[in-house]
Amino acid sequence: MSHLKKLYEAQEQLKEVLLKTPLIYSPGFSEEYHNQVYIKPENLQKTGAFKIRGAYNKITHLTEKEKSKGLICSSAGNHAQGVAYAAKALGVKATIVMPKTTPLIKVEATKKYGATVVLHGDVYDDAYTEAKRLEKKHDYVFIHPFDDLDIIYGQGTIGLEILEELKDVDYILVPVGGGGLISGIAMAIKESNPKIKVIGIEPRGAMAMKQSLRMNERVCLNKVDTIADGVAVKEPGVLTYELIKKYVDDIIIVDDYDLMDAFLMLVEKHKLVAENAGLLALAGLKKLDVKNKNVVSLLSGGNIDVVTISSLISKGLVSRGRIYCFSVDLPDTPGQLLQISQILSDNKANVVKLDHNQFRTTDRFHHVNLQVTIETNGHDHLKIILNALDKGGFVVEEVN
Amino acid sequence: MSHLKKLYEAQEQLKEVLLKTPLIYSPGFSEEYHNQVYIKPENLQKTGAFKIRGAYNKITHLTEKEKSKGLICSSAGNHAQGVAYAAKALGVKATIVMPKTTPLIKVEATKKYGATVVLHGDVYDDAYTEAKRLEKKHDYVFIHPFDDLDIIYGQGTIGLEILEELKDVDYILVPVGGGGLISGIAMAIKESNPKIKVIGIEPRGAMAMKQSLRMNERVCLNKVDTIADGVAVKEPGVLTYELIKKYVDDIIIVDDYDLMDAFLMLVEKHKLVAENAGLLALAGLKKLDVKNKNVVSLLSGGNIDVVTISSLISKGLVSRGRIYCFSVDLPDTPGQLLQISQILSDNKANVVKLDHNQFRTTDRFHHVNLQVTIETNGHDHLKIILNALDKGGFVVEEVN
Repeated sequence: MSHLKKLYEAQEQLKEVLLKTPLIYSPGFSEEYHNQVYIKPENLQKTGAFKIRGAYNKITHLTEKEKSKGLICSSAGNHAQGVAYAAKALGVKATIVMPKTTPLIKVEATKKYGATVVLHGDVYDDAYTEAKRLEKKHDYVFIHPFDDLDIIYGQGTIGLEILEELKDVDYILVPVGGGGLISGIAMAIKESNPKIKVIGIEPRGAMAMKQSLRMNERVCLNKVDTIADGVAVKEPGVLTYELIKKYVDDIIIVDDYDLMDAFLMLVEKHKLVAENAGLLALAGLKKLDVKNKNVVSLLSGGNIDVVTISSLISKGLVSRGRIYCFSVDLPDTPGQLLQISQILSDNKANVVKLDHNQFRTTDRFHHVNLQVTIETNGHDHLKIILNALDKGGFVVEEVN
Repeated sequence: MSHLKKLYEAQEQLKEVLLKTPLIYSPGFSEEYHNQVYIKPENLQKTGAFKIRGAYNKITHLTEKEKSKGLICSSAGNHAQGVAYAAKALGVKATIVMPKTTPLIKVEATKKYGATVVLHGDVYDDAYTEAKRLEKKHDYVFIHPFDDLDIIYGQGTIGLEILEELKDVDYILVPVGGGGLISGIAMAIKESNPKIKVIGIEPRGAMAMKQSLRMNERVCLNKVDTIADGVAVKEPGVLTYELIKKYVDDIIIVDDYDLMDAFLMLVEKHKLVAENAGLLALAGLKKLDVKNKNVVSLLSGGNIDVVTISSLISKGLVSRGRIYCFSVDLPDTPGQLLQISQILSDNKANVVKLDHNQFRTTDRFHHVNLQVTIETNGHDHLKIILNALDKGGFVVEEVN
């Protein structure tokens, strides 16, 4: 059967379980990036991510015998929730191995969907090894997170939905981790209309697919280092590598600070949150060198815990110049603090935090070292404030 | 013309400008509160709030002569953006007076919609006075934020939309500030089907409407004190008070910490953000004493700045027991710090911050006072940690 037929079959299967995630037109991103930008909000999908599509499609294709054995998979993230939800919906037993370090909130969500959760090891690889051990021991069926055609067809239904809603789409931007998501979408798009461009987005700290395409063979990275944990994959899949080579037009690389920026813009412009990996295709918009095109950016997932949101905001504000931390030496004479306070106040810098070097405070032979964190309206405002401090004779050093 | 006819007329007018905000069914809130809960997401509305409805309807009802004079209003929030957007869409000049303390992001958004922004005074009342002065001076048309029938009909179109989508709705929960929003919705609902209950939600720190209904006359509060700044109104409108008395079934009061809780739940369960005032009707769900009903909770707006989000998260985590700060006196002898670190580590408390009293550190006659901030999995986990510290002989004091 052709890929396209399999994809339509998957779409039919999924109708009974999926939430509709209609494209959202974005006036803000459109203006910012000089294209007609649409967001495909799979962060609003059931379980908070697209993974349910592949998992559900995979399970419906198992034999009754396989289903009766039960499923196993390893995941610290969205795949766990997708498999758990799909298994429950289809009345199949699922065991999911998660690293012990998985945030409680994700463990709880997975349990809530009815799966048995085994906490094992400190990193994903340990959990994977344990899952493979349990697969053999109990004769479970292993559900791979990406390197499986039925999983890929499931994810590819996103491509069909985009085509139905926006026939004249020009570009589709898709996050790349193991490659299952983009393989399916690119397949759906290119088999339907090869003129539409499908672009993958990888983080600089985990660009296994980009490197593999460059080297013309699957590359295994020594380490991955990115805040986009959901796509921090060391080695592309065998199937997904071949499909991406065949169907995907290009892969764009973005940096972690692009993701922070994208997070703030998404909250401010659309009142939506997404997880770091989910933001890749939004962050990729500014690297896309085209104008006046219809661009769809896929928000692949939204499962971010609130502590991470808080850190993202802090870092995003620093990168925007909205928060600035500096240190300055003050001679230990009266009036110095008043003077610096006056300058900050005159220039409408809001002092958020004030620290001083604790061991020097009682030492008259040294200057007092003052550390100040201020809130500003952005880089332009910050420049004015720094100029004023400079004029006032204060030597300011940025603190990171 | 009847109220209902005016409402349908407004709905027809608004078609050309509104974004559709379809009801979102919430499995999470439904389970939590034992009702079938739907969210009406006006945080996703153009300009990020419902206010555009009333503003647009009002302006379409002005005469050509009035429109040529130009509009004026005062607002630090969503009314400003609603009027600015609607005025631009209808080709009318708008001047908006905002207090100088308005967050830059809201000033910028209002300017971006093409309005002239005048920054005046430190609080809303100053801005209002200036707007009334400019109204007289330039013969502008003043656009009231709530006490105006055309504004009320505009907001009321939300009620019609809910009826269209969920005919058998039992309860509709609506935030109450000046009262324009709930007046319109209650009118639309009760004139269509009086059996449906319409419940207002006010914050404890600004319950002017609840008090007024109790006293059976419009009450003016001496002060307002709530994080829900968008509804921090001292005195209900004349029109809105009468309409609410006639059409609204009850008003429920929520506390600021209920809003923080609602914020975290909304982000976690729905990947959506809303502003504090916008969260009132979600926070009200837990105070609604009914079961197995179809309940619609109106998220009225989403214009929250990211710094506020960050604070909300911090405070929400504290109220959930996920972040806990305590101080403890340590005798100044070796090994004490090790022991307390061991207890925290054994009980999987993640140490976020460690401070010590700076002036005592070099004083051998005193104990060292240690201040510790830990991250836990919630109240149950926290209890275990505190018990362990207690058993270890440490006297712990909570720090707020």
